[in-house]
Amino acid sequence: MPNEIKPAARADIAPAGANPVLVEVTRGAAVESRHRGSAVIVDARGTVVARWGDATRPVYPRSAVKPLQAIPLVETGAAESFGLGDDEIALACASHNGETRHAETATRWLHAIGLGVEDLECGPQWPNHEDTARALAKAGVMPTALHNNCSGKHAGFLTTAVHKGEATKGYVRIEHPVQQRILGTLEAMCGLDLSDAPRGIDGCAIPTIAIPLENLAYGMARFGAPDALPAARADACRRIAGAMAAQPFMVAGSGRYCTDVMRVTGGAALVKTGAEGVFCAAFPEYGLGAALKCDDGAKRAAEVMMSAVLRHVGVLSEEMEAELADWITAPVTNRNGETVGEIRATAEFAG
Amino acid sequence: MPNEIKPAARADIAPAGANPVLVEVTRGAAVESRHRGSAVIVDARGTVVARWGDATRPVYPRSAVKPLQAIPLVETGAAESFGLGDDEIALACASHNGETRHAETATRWLHAIGLGVEDLECGPQWPNHEDTARALAKAGVMPTALHNNCSGKHAGFLTTAVHKGEATKGYVRIEHPVQQRILGTLEAMCGLDLSDAPRGIDGCAIPTIAIPLENLAYGMARFGAPDALPAARADACRRIAGAMAAQPFMVAGSGRYCTDVMRVTGGAALVKTGAEGVFCAAFPEYGLGAALKCDDGAKRAAEVMMSAVLRHVGVLSEEMEAELADWITAPVTNRNGETVGEIRATAEFAG
Repeated sequence: MPNEIKPAARADIAPAGANPVLVEVTRGAAVESRHRGSAVIVDARGTVVARWGDATRPVYPRSAVKPLQAIPLVETGAAESFGLGDDEIALACASHNGETRHAETATRWLHAIGLGVEDLECGPQWPNHEDTARALAKAGVMPTALHNNCSGKHAGFLTTAVHKGEATKGYVRIEHPVQQRILGTLEAMCGLDLSDAPRGIDGCAIPTIAIPLENLAYGMARFGAPDALPAARADACRRIAGAMAAQPFMVAGSGRYCTDVMRVTGGAALVKTGAEGVFCAAFPEYGLGAALKCDDGAKRAAEVMMSAVLRHVGVLSEEMEAELADWITAPVTNRNGETVGEIRATAEFAG
Repeated sequence: MPNEIKPAARADIAPAGANPVLVEVTRGAAVESRHRGSAVIVDARGTVVARWGDATRPVYPRSAVKPLQAIPLVETGAAESFGLGDDEIALACASHNGETRHAETATRWLHAIGLGVEDLECGPQWPNHEDTARALAKAGVMPTALHNNCSGKHAGFLTTAVHKGEATKGYVRIEHPVQQRILGTLEAMCGLDLSDAPRGIDGCAIPTIAIPLENLAYGMARFGAPDALPAARADACRRIAGAMAAQPFMVAGSGRYCTDVMRVTGGAALVKTGAEGVFCAAFPEYGLGAALKCDDGAKRAAEVMMSAVLRHVGVLSEEMEAELADWITAPVTNRNGETVGEIRATAEFAG
């Protein structure tokens, strides 16, 4: 089992100068805005299958590695010990909308481990889902940490801590066993030493650790095709991948990219978005993983980039392409609802 | 009076390849995202004073040219005929927040010209100001075209049409006299023929016409220092510039870049944002204009870019810099309110 991306593949991955324009935004007769970025597809042996731009530069994966961050929840036996189902495990991998079902699942879960909203250290957030946010406002209710898009991931962290008899307070800090366990898991899955990697604080207060896209893609390939991993880890990966495929709504929500892609592909593409234009993906049936970042951090571009990668992998049937059409080339509309442009992969990237 | 940007200046303006990275977003120990773009400062004679990146490529100015689009409202005598004050003229230049004062001013104005909300063709929009949007939601009130950030510009269009005895219906269409008058004004102010320029439909349904940044900056320089223009146009420019300086709240609103910069500088910098990362600015005391675009369309980067241009022009005193500190280098915070990074001009651009 290789622990590093194969050097032969790495050697040809970094072009000189700026990353290429991968997505362009049109309006009427002209391209109005341009998004540069990099993307890479890697197999479970660490061989680069396809790449665009520089995939060797460290990138903060943000929420795009939540499926890998969920591994200790299952691998330690915590999930089984508390009888968690697909709903909770999918929510542990989620950047959810804060819709009623998301917040209620997090509430019940925390109750089941003997904790409550006051134990979440992610901070409050107005639901990403606008109708839900307006419904809260209408009811005069302020959002809590349960509505934070990361509340499921944090519930997972707390569950592991409780199961292992660790302190729950301060579980977001890098020195806490919960974060150390995740650091070790990321190193093993992505095949690199992260002790000197650049670190920052994520929006939900946990550490985010910079990892090259090619290593993230390698980690995701092994997550989706874990046969070569130790048995307990392989079982954990299969359990998490199965939960994401079975409950795509819990991973994001209404009108969201990740939910739609996993629902339409029946889990053949397990995709996870992260802030600042990052995506990770696993394609279990293909033994492939992918990772990408839009240089400028734009979500709208990262989604179109992810769709282009799905097409390169070959995971989309004609019917799936039709159903996901607005995620492949997104319409730009004005306030009267008329389509006035589009967000599309460049010819070079669309292939 | 020159009708074109001086070729000598134009010759050295376009570097080969990609525009430079002008803004970077940090998190902890690393740069997380990068924004490329171009910016240019031009004087009222058309001489380029400073430029970064390619300022010759046509750019949709979107709402950043609202001050120039307001010229016919004053120049035709429509504003005087209906007794418009600084509030209304500043609102005609606004991408406002949809706060109560903005919507009420638009309501009264439309009533004064014998029209109403049903005559606005910009479409409805939830107020950009989140607290206002939530207050509407709480009251069970749906937003209307009055809350659209462009409602003042549209009230201005309607006022000119009524004053000239033109049909009000269809005033957003390129063939309507209102839009034709604006097209001619843009051509004269920016010194170029726009008959073959790329066109698109803006978010509020009017045409947006692509103009190189250097021509936009030239137009803005002459807007702020209009002595060489015909008397009626020069008077209109002075009236509009005076209204923006006197009523900066009406041009944007609470917590907004344009309002804060014009308030703090006392109108020495007249700045106007546009969608997709565009800014135009006039510096009347300096006889200078500026225009910029963030390639990827990001507002957060365009604001930091505009602040760097303000510093290059020399319009900010030490006290002003302190008051505008978070607009010069913007903090990145997590959901617990902790600062975890910053959005800053690159060393190359900050100078």
